[in-house]
Amino acid sequence: MADPTRAAGSVGTVETRYADLPVPVPLDCGRELPNVRVAYETYGELAPNRDNVILVCHALSGDAHAAGFAKTPPASGTRDGFGAEARDGATGAGLGWWDGMIGPGKAFDTDRYFVVSTNLLGGCRGTTGPASIDPATGAPYGADFPVITVADMVRTERAFLDTLGIERLAAVAGGSLGGMQALEWAVSYPDQVDAIVAIATTHALHPQGVAWNAIARSAIMGDPAWQGGQYYGTGRSPDAGMGVARMVGHITYLSAPALDDKFARRLQYADDVRYTITEPEFEVENYLRHQAESFVKRFDANTYLYTSRALTYFDLARQYGAGSLAKALDTVAARTLLIAFSSDWLYPPQASRDIEQALRSLGKDVELAVIDAPYGHDCFLLEEARQTPIIRRFLAEGRTP
Amino acid sequence: MADPTRAAGSVGTVETRYADLPVPVPLDCGRELPNVRVAYETYGELAPNRDNVILVCHALSGDAHAAGFAKTPPASGTRDGFGAEARDGATGAGLGWWDGMIGPGKAFDTDRYFVVSTNLLGGCRGTTGPASIDPATGAPYGADFPVITVADMVRTERAFLDTLGIERLAAVAGGSLGGMQALEWAVSYPDQVDAIVAIATTHALHPQGVAWNAIARSAIMGDPAWQGGQYYGTGRSPDAGMGVARMVGHITYLSAPALDDKFARRLQYADDVRYTITEPEFEVENYLRHQAESFVKRFDANTYLYTSRALTYFDLARQYGAGSLAKALDTVAARTLLIAFSSDWLYPPQASRDIEQALRSLGKDVELAVIDAPYGHDCFLLEEARQTPIIRRFLAEGRTP
Repeated sequence: MADPTRAAGSVGTVETRYADLPVPVPLDCGRELPNVRVAYETYGELAPNRDNVILVCHALSGDAHAAGFAKTPPASGTRDGFGAEARDGATGAGLGWWDGMIGPGKAFDTDRYFVVSTNLLGGCRGTTGPASIDPATGAPYGADFPVITVADMVRTERAFLDTLGIERLAAVAGGSLGGMQALEWAVSYPDQVDAIVAIATTHALHPQGVAWNAIARSAIMGDPAWQGGQYYGTGRSPDAGMGVARMVGHITYLSAPALDDKFARRLQYADDVRYTITEPEFEVENYLRHQAESFVKRFDANTYLYTSRALTYFDLARQYGAGSLAKALDTVAARTLLIAFSSDWLYPPQASRDIEQALRSLGKDVELAVIDAPYGHDCFLLEEARQTPIIRRFLAEGRTP
Repeated sequence: MADPTRAAGSVGTVETRYADLPVPVPLDCGRELPNVRVAYETYGELAPNRDNVILVCHALSGDAHAAGFAKTPPASGTRDGFGAEARDGATGAGLGWWDGMIGPGKAFDTDRYFVVSTNLLGGCRGTTGPASIDPATGAPYGADFPVITVADMVRTERAFLDTLGIERLAAVAGGSLGGMQALEWAVSYPDQVDAIVAIATTHALHPQGVAWNAIARSAIMGDPAWQGGQYYGTGRSPDAGMGVARMVGHITYLSAPALDDKFARRLQYADDVRYTITEPEFEVENYLRHQAESFVKRFDANTYLYTSRALTYFDLARQYGAGSLAKALDTVAARTLLIAFSSDWLYPPQASRDIEQALRSLGKDVELAVIDAPYGHDCFLLEEARQTPIIRRFLAEGRTP
């Protein structure tokens, strides 16, 4: 059941479409990827002069279905990236993962903007990824899929937009890994992006974040059912490892106080423990198990590995500035809105402050909003109401310079 | 190579001994455990009136070898509980896990005290645990080992001390799970404990900590080599799952800033990435892999499961106070020293403050020291020099009331 106020600003029922790129995508690793297909959705109308395009980029576990109701709702819903399933019962209706932000009158206002959302390169929801058929072998790539970077994702988005005849972007927006893509757009295509909205993100994940990702990947690759990545068609997949990976991720997306508020130390049954090692005793344990089980059903393990790796590699200073973030951002021409959340310990506000200071030192147009909110990294999906006026104003300022 | 200053205050070479308890240990789960053997070490001399005994309790991955050099150094050393291997090169010499704290002139001064250290119930380093033979079947317990609690561990320690003819304790001391045991001693045997030193611990693990433990157990039990816990003698053990469990634990024992200082985002090789999913790229990834590999060699997966479960169950307020911590602590007679560390996010200082306030509200003799130090939970093993004067003074005050 959709919330009525949400439905009022809904983009309605949408269908994911697919575009095949006419030329191979060159990759940072030196390989190039042929026959790339991109899954995408669009919301709103493209202006005749094509100057109202906002590209929305998703995070680790997202997909192209960012807003509205899926024409064919997936069995387990899509709005559960980063634990947002905790928020409402709408997932069963196939509501997009950022539906609260995209629609008529919303942050990314489809009465004004033509919003485009794609599944990222390496994905498992329609865009070419490790589960796709390698034309060279006729079999799924598996672990032979080339290692990709955020720059590769953005290069693919650039090539995809060409197929729609879109040259310039009014804005690129995203949270977490999506925010990394927005930053990468500003650096890689400075003359084609008017503004970026980079939320709950960083210019380079801190070592603890690198560690969490390494642990998640270890869990997947350590599962014998992973089979070196060539599990497609074997009837087995690394569900146990993926479940652990998801649980690790999930806890890092939430703050400790949020877990306290939500679960405290409440037990599953009655008022006492049952003395079991194998079964959940605490509500938080049961919740985690549920998270793992539902994620495993809808997400491909290899996509998780590749995407997780890409976001650990992302490092603007190393890649573009010989270690200097300011040098890396020197070419940025886009107006920049950064949003961070006080309780986000995976992508802490300090990273956004670093970006802000670097851009400001270069005399660039930058704005940082740190929102005081308790839900950790998940805030970028949950705190839509508080982000909306900030984003609307920022975008409006761009239209009337 | 041992540090010379450390060697100067060393208890020397020690040998782990074993005591067999004459009667079964009754357990919280309702079962009782027969034929319990306890591995232990002692340092210093027992006073003729037996009033100088300090019991030291270890944490999740520790053992009875708390101080001195092991007579037969284990291949991989023992001083790597909670990442202390990062600290010095002494592990190869089989130095005890709290050697900096126990010895002549140290915090637990063996010139004055008779320090006793045991491997906890359910352990894998000499005390009866899941790998021990079940006398009822003649085969290892495996997952048929009864689920144990911190109170069961303490009940076992009480029974063990009886075999040495020790009735009263001048102090019980420990960090983390060891601190939980100290607290449990003060509650369960109020007339037999003069003082407790509970370090980096809590009266009840917060939900995020419960979650980390659940994830670690899921990783182990999700490994097919776990075989429902009956892996002994099969030639297979859940090493992959244990490795992931250890990595999760390890990161929670360290602070994010400590990881930053230690590893930053340094790459393993040269100045650029090699574009690999399966191999470590960052130094922190390589470090984690090493941690996992060395831990798996020295620790039993089932002991990890049981001990992890015990520490999530621990909840003084629920167990003894019908939800009230003050009520639970009402019987405490021991002088209490609490030490917490500012950067410990797994056992945050607030938990120690809660205990302090509860004891203070009851008019008990309690003292809390919050040490400002950057290494996270691992501080209780690493910040020995700063804990030493606090503990020495606290213990001395008890001797001259």
